[in-house]
Amino acid sequence: MVGPGFDLGAIDPRSTPGFTGNKTDGQAAGAAAANELSHLQEMLFADSRTGGKRKLLLILQGMDTSGKGGIVRHVVGAVDPQGVSHVAFKAPTPAELRHDFLWRIRRELPTAGLIGVFDRSHYEDVLIGRVKQLAPPEEIDQRYELINAFEQEVVDDDTTVIKVMLHISAEEQKKRLLERLDRPDKFWKFHPSDIDDRLLWPAYQAAYQTALERTSTAAAPWHVVPADRKWFARLAVRELLLKALKDLELTWPPADFDVPAERARLALS
Amino acid sequence: MVGPGFDLGAIDPRSTPGFTGNKTDGQAAGAAAANELSHLQEMLFADSRTGGKRKLLLILQGMDTSGKGGIVRHVVGAVDPQGVSHVAFKAPTPAELRHDFLWRIRRELPTAGLIGVFDRSHYEDVLIGRVKQLAPPEEIDQRYELINAFEQEVVDDDTTVIKVMLHISAEEQKKRLLERLDRPDKFWKFHPSDIDDRLLWPAYQAAYQTALERTSTAAAPWHVVPADRKWFARLAVRELLLKALKDLELTWPPADFDVPAERARLALS
Repeated sequence: MVGPGFDLGAIDPRSTPGFTGNKTDGQAAGAAAANELSHLQEMLFADSRTGGKRKLLLILQGMDTSGKGGIVRHVVGAVDPQGVSHVAFKAPTPAELRHDFLWRIRRELPTAGLIGVFDRSHYEDVLIGRVKQLAPPEEIDQRYELINAFEQEVVDDDTTVIKVMLHISAEEQKKRLLERLDRPDKFWKFHPSDIDDRLLWPAYQAAYQTALERTSTAAAPWHVVPADRKWFARLAVRELLLKALKDLELTWPPADFDVPAERARLALS
Repeated sequence: MVGPGFDLGAIDPRSTPGFTGNKTDGQAAGAAAANELSHLQEMLFADSRTGGKRKLLLILQGMDTSGKGGIVRHVVGAVDPQGVSHVAFKAPTPAELRHDFLWRIRRELPTAGLIGVFDRSHYEDVLIGRVKQLAPPEEIDQRYELINAFEQEVVDDDTTVIKVMLHISAEEQKKRLLERLDRPDKFWKFHPSDIDDRLLWPAYQAAYQTALERTSTAAAPWHVVPADRKWFARLAVRELLLKALKDLELTWPPADFDVPAERARLALS
């Protein structure tokens, strides 16, 4: 979790903090956890069907190839599709640009009972926005506070916000980009701009450092997940989701109807 | 597939047409098919990333407890959440009622590369709409043609439309509703109106017969899937999705960039 004195550069992307096992152990731990995740999400969904307002929002950020898509497929994929609201934010459209940068984000907030997943998010507006100077510096500077206020509002609306930065090394990225160039079934995932962005690596890391420092709040803290090892990143994010769901102390909602009376009606039907 | 002379009442909800195995065989066949489904959906998604417009739309209808949710969880759940757009249509809101009945449906059509899933749909407007006389009979009568025209438009927009009625028997429904009343972890799935609807069973079956007869078109035919055996219904719907995806004859899109040039840039980065 990102707190005072945070230094992104000091985190080893190949490390597996809090886990002493290897890949095989990590994958084995994953299977049982996936079932538990699915089960707890169903309880969250049930809660919403009887008036509960609670929901989760997982915000995924990270450089290209850091594994955001893999988290969605392999971690979120364990959950019933009915319980997930997934949004991949691309470059804003001209219509979206005519609004405040948070406008399109608000529209996609998950409703009660769901796990919302943002693959990229409003953080792009202080990441690529900063690196490529897509807005005046003063404006970008104001966004951190706007983000904090926005997220506080979201949290106050019974949303558990889990912000994850998937932290990979430049070497690992090179390997993964090369794979996309080597395999025809991966070409579609590659775009020449990925290399343009890669050439700005230090600027992006600096923008992440600033963003994480300024927006890791008590209400919505950041988690930096070392992501050079995909299996570890998936395990870590799954654990964050599980912890968030467990903290809600969910129970199956009681019947809001007369059970014996309904059973009698059913018997006669 | 619903064609001339179709008679819903003549279809045995416990039958397993086209499959000679038992439950264990059905479940075993499912695991491999689930991987294939996931794989083909990724190809569909890749196709859309390079300009393809194709998408699938699975429309699920059926009486309460017929297993629509189970299809979503167990069949659609095999697909990457990024590739699925799931919508459960409830009773229309007052705002939605101020529009044509297809208005809210259009807004939820899947975009290119996705498998859209409608859990209930515009067909409710000729099912519960007819049974409970929620609109004048002439108006409901016009809807069948409006639906056919709408679906033709959707198909012309490169959408493969797969319409499935999950067909259960009244006895099986009784068993499933009773389970919801017997298990506190299922209470949230029960609503007393489920029994009200059950008491109108023959009227609903008649409304289905009419709807299926009048809207099973060459462009968007209906499939009645016997659903008293959950494992069979899941297998059958999975096969329909697989067939639709195979019929698209998808290939991995070629690179729209100069692969050796990008590899050289990457090497230098």
